[in-house]
Amino acid sequence: MNTATLLISCPDRKGLSAAIANFLFTYNANIVHSDQHQDISENLFLMRVEWDLTDFTLDMAAFSAAFQPIADRFQMQWKVALSARRPKMAILVSRYDHCLVDLLHRHQSGELHCDIPLIISNHEDCRALADFYGIPYHVIDVPRDGKAQAEAAQRQLLEEHGVDLIVLARYMQVLSHDFTARYPQRVINIHHSFLPAFDGAKPYHRAFARGVKLIGATSHYVTEVLDDGPIIEQDVIRISHRDDVEELIRKGRDLEKMVLARAVKWHLEHRVLVYSNKTVIFA
Amino acid sequence: MNTATLLISCPDRKGLSAAIANFLFTYNANIVHSDQHQDISENLFLMRVEWDLTDFTLDMAAFSAAFQPIADRFQMQWKVALSARRPKMAILVSRYDHCLVDLLHRHQSGELHCDIPLIISNHEDCRALADFYGIPYHVIDVPRDGKAQAEAAQRQLLEEHGVDLIVLARYMQVLSHDFTARYPQRVINIHHSFLPAFDGAKPYHRAFARGVKLIGATSHYVTEVLDDGPIIEQDVIRISHRDDVEELIRKGRDLEKMVLARAVKWHLEHRVLVYSNKTVIFA
Amino acid sequence: MNTATLLISCPDRKGLSAAIANFLFTYNANIVHSDQHQDISENLFLMRVEWDLTDFTLDMAAFSAAFQPIADRFQMQWKVALSARRPKMAILVSRYDHCLVDLLHRHQSGELHCDIPLIISNHEDCRALADFYGIPYHVIDVPRDGKAQAEAAQRQLLEEHGVDLIVLARYMQVLSHDFTARYPQRVINIHHSFLPAFDGAKPYHRAFARGVKLIGATSHYVTEVLDDGPIIEQDVIRISHRDDVEELIRKGRDLEKMVLARAVKWHLEHRVLVYSNKTVIFA
Amino acid sequence: MNTATLLISCPDRKGLSAAIANFLFTYNANIVHSDQHQDISENLFLMRVEWDLTDFTLDMAAFSAAFQPIADRFQMQWKVALSARRPKMAILVSRYDHCLVDLLHRHQSGELHCDIPLIISNHEDCRALADFYGIPYHVIDVPRDGKAQAEAAQRQLLEEHGVDLIVLARYMQVLSHDFTARYPQRVINIHHSFLPAFDGAKPYHRAFARGVKLIGATSHYVTEVLDDGPIIEQDVIRISHRDDVEELIRKGRDLEKMVLARAVKWHLEHRVLVYSNKTVIFA
Repeated sequence: MNTATLLISCPDRKGLSAAIANFLFTYNANIVHSDQHQDISENLFLMRVEWDLTDFTLDMAAFSAAFQPIADRFQMQWKVALSARRPKMAILVSRYDHCLVDLLHRHQSGELHCDIPLIISNHEDCRALADFYGIPYHVIDVPRDGKAQAEAAQRQLLEEHGVDLIVLARYMQVLSHDFTARYPQRVINIHHSFLPAFDGAKPYHRAFARGVKLIGATSHYVTEVLDDGPIIEQDVIRISHRDDVEELIRKGRDLEKMVLARAVKWHLEHRVLVYSNKTVIFA
Repeated sequence: MNTATLLISCPDRKGLSAAIANFLFTYNANIVHSDQHQDISENLFLMRVEWDLTDFTLDMAAFSAAFQPIADRFQMQWKVALSARRPKMAILVSRYDHCLVDLLHRHQSGELHCDIPLIISNHEDCRALADFYGIPYHVIDVPRDGKAQAEAAQRQLLEEHGVDLIVLARYMQVLSHDFTARYPQRVINIHHSFLPAFDGAKPYHRAFARGVKLIGATSHYVTEVLDDGPIIEQDVIRISHRDDVEELIRKGRDLEKMVLARAVKWHLEHRVLVYSNKTVIFA
Repeated sequence: MNTATLLISCPDRKGLSAAIANFLFTYNANIVHSDQHQDISENLFLMRVEWDLTDFTLDMAAFSAAFQPIADRFQMQWKVALSARRPKMAILVSRYDHCLVDLLHRHQSGELHCDIPLIISNHEDCRALADFYGIPYHVIDVPRDGKAQAEAAQRQLLEEHGVDLIVLARYMQVLSHDFTARYPQRVINIHHSFLPAFDGAKPYHRAFARGVKLIGATSHYVTEVLDDGPIIEQDVIRISHRDDVEELIRKGRDLEKMVLARAVKWHLEHRVLVYSNKTVIFA
Repeated sequence: MNTATLLISCPDRKGLSAAIANFLFTYNANIVHSDQHQDISENLFLMRVEWDLTDFTLDMAAFSAAFQPIADRFQMQWKVALSARRPKMAILVSRYDHCLVDLLHRHQSGELHCDIPLIISNHEDCRALADFYGIPYHVIDVPRDGKAQAEAAQRQLLEEHGVDLIVLARYMQVLSHDFTARYPQRVINIHHSFLPAFDGAKPYHRAFARGVKLIGATSHYVTEVLDDGPIIEQDVIRISHRDDVEELIRKGRDLEKMVLARAVKWHLEHRVLVYSNKTVIFA
């Protein structure tokens, strides 16, 4: 189905729903999904509406001009996305390959609506895998004293390919503020704990030491504060005294794969809205 | 907050959202929640919209007359519910008291937006509990050959009290078709299995014999086919070889309480829509 | 069934299992459950073994004298518990009554193998509930500047009744170090977060502010460090952007009840062993 | 670690634990894991004990002769497995490749302690994947009227390679009774429902039609009755009215992968014991 998806955030006011619904009806939109959320405490209105373009009488090239007056009236932040335009996703990875294997297979299976023009790594380890799926694989070394240069090389590649979304699939380097500021709400990381517990290094070891009964994983947008960005998805799995740290790491891999894949999928389907360092998921 | 909630089911057509949004905006509705669902395969549109009545300029006594033309145009099945009118809920119970304890405490805590004018049982066992919460408790014996008479007595009590919802909180009698036909989508049962597995009698014993690794509970509207009505909520819990049947029954009680309570709460908040023997939960 | 349960912790050494098994077989024990765990990294052996006393030929009054030589040989920490001796459990509660309701009903249903000689509260609120279940209810006010005196009064009551286990069922006061030191691994608290996330005050508010996708509850033994004792049980439930803080609190209550009840049950059945500020649950 | 694992099932009798512990201690076994279970209603004793062979003074070639007298005395069914002997696992697959991708990557990551000498399929689809992981891939067509011949070819391959375990990774053919009788408790299937609900064909479609709120997956040993063998593992995931059948299939794939992988791992680590058409998992 060839659809358009409109995402809106604005102060909540009477008449909002009517204004949007009338606009879409004027051009004969066949709505296939519509979700909205009012955050009463912040007086905020959030909406995702997706419609079939088959009978839509407004040329999407003219959408912005037609919609902007309504957006202005209600002080909307908005964007519209077309299903016909597949987003471009880059994957950054280090040595652990489980999330990469998972994402590439999901992509091949048609679960992820995107193109993957490139994978960037600081190691050669995953090249054969990338080759198998036919994705160009770039190795950019990140020496301890050469991070700025490495990031410059990464950013050049990302820009060349017009990348929309960057997925850190267990990429073991902390990105600079410059980097993350360049891609707001466009870098998704998977952290191997139930944040905010065990942010930072070696979360499985610390979970083991604390004696928790469940371990978790968290996918989030990367901001300049480490492991503090808006959480997109989390999940947990039960462990017991029989599980040593290696077993936690093994069980955690399954969590990491699933939690990252859900976040990536929702982002690619324009189901994630951010406010107050939190996400609304219209799934 | 003093609100009205409108529930709509109808064939999906362009202009539906606009028609409803415009109607509400005409009377200055302040929408606080809105959910909708399109079932594309059945071409069905379902909606729940709740608005604050504070600034609403249409007298709710006149709502029906004002809205019916729109309903007719789109062939809607609809109803409107006012938060100011607390539904009346009757609880039927036999000897197991865990669901009753749970519902009465939730009611006292303000979780369940309803009045409970009466509890009906075929046993004296739960009378002290009902007394503690100040709910009238009626015992109607159900002899093997006197079910029709017992149901007549039950129905008379239910009618006298203008009951809107009947909750079978582990009521161990099968209701007649006459009875269930009288209260369509207004009788909620809790079945102690993950339906459709283990419908009928002794589900925990059969789950134990089959060696399942999870046990479940299912809340559903009662229809004339046993354990076959629209499912409102289900949940499961993990068991192991260490759990004998008694332990399954004990663990299952926690499931039954939670799964029934969620279904009752959603029903009372007008969050459940039924079609094709299934439910949509706008929660 | 009339059983004895032996709990053992000691350095792991060859011959341990044989020594214990031979001892029990010598006196004709009919073992009904046996669990053991080796923590290889700490070279620790932990065991729980329960046997039917029907055919046991050693008088349990003489157990200690008979077993101590083996215990000495293997440097065991050990204790033996008899099912015939019901532990005495005190419940401390403030105003929130949901955990208390839950524990008292489970106790009445036979789920918790203990006597409850008293409930202590700093408020009158739960007296009617305690009366309903026939449990003596003591109110000890805890003024801001009178905590030491209040704890003295509490401790006197607990000593008088020979209390084995103290359950803080959402008791909103922090106990002094003196108090907790007096009852090592004998005070169980329920904290309304997934520890170590959101330790301390107002966890639901902070979970809401952080935008987590699951909320949790944690039952743990109380130590002198707030919310840092050995974790006995944890669980989580999914939330969404539709849930405000009040809804988190409401959903959390169900978690708190279940997570606390499991911990209490396991403790009362002598299924919990503690080492390195962690628990092993032989459930 | 170089270990031996002993699995025992027998009637429960006093002295069993002592006899086994003494036997192992006699030969200086360093026990690293020990699990046992008494099924009181069936008077059955089940045990799994694993020990480090480093200091073990009995040559494992002589184990059987040394242990058999004890086995006879207690009427044991038993087997011993050596970690040094990697089991041989064959995978049968049709067109859906998600379980195969998952198993091969886990194998490569070291999660599955086995060799995979071959993959057998009735289609060419997964050949490139098998090649990538360096596993020989055999296509044996299964025409509607040539099943017996196809199975003969399959069995010949399996025998040639001395296969211990056969995993049906979404293999879409029903095996004959002859075939399954040849490999008792050695063929693991993944069924895409929460058995016993929706056994047989098209479980996701039927789950969708019934309106369940959770979908499941079940891994089980294959017996001659379809979808009726001993269940090894099950899990579920929540769905909603927003999920159509395609979405159920997609979500279900994640379940299928995890539930099958757990079963395979446990089997390969000799953690599964079967009795009364049920499994005990010593995990």
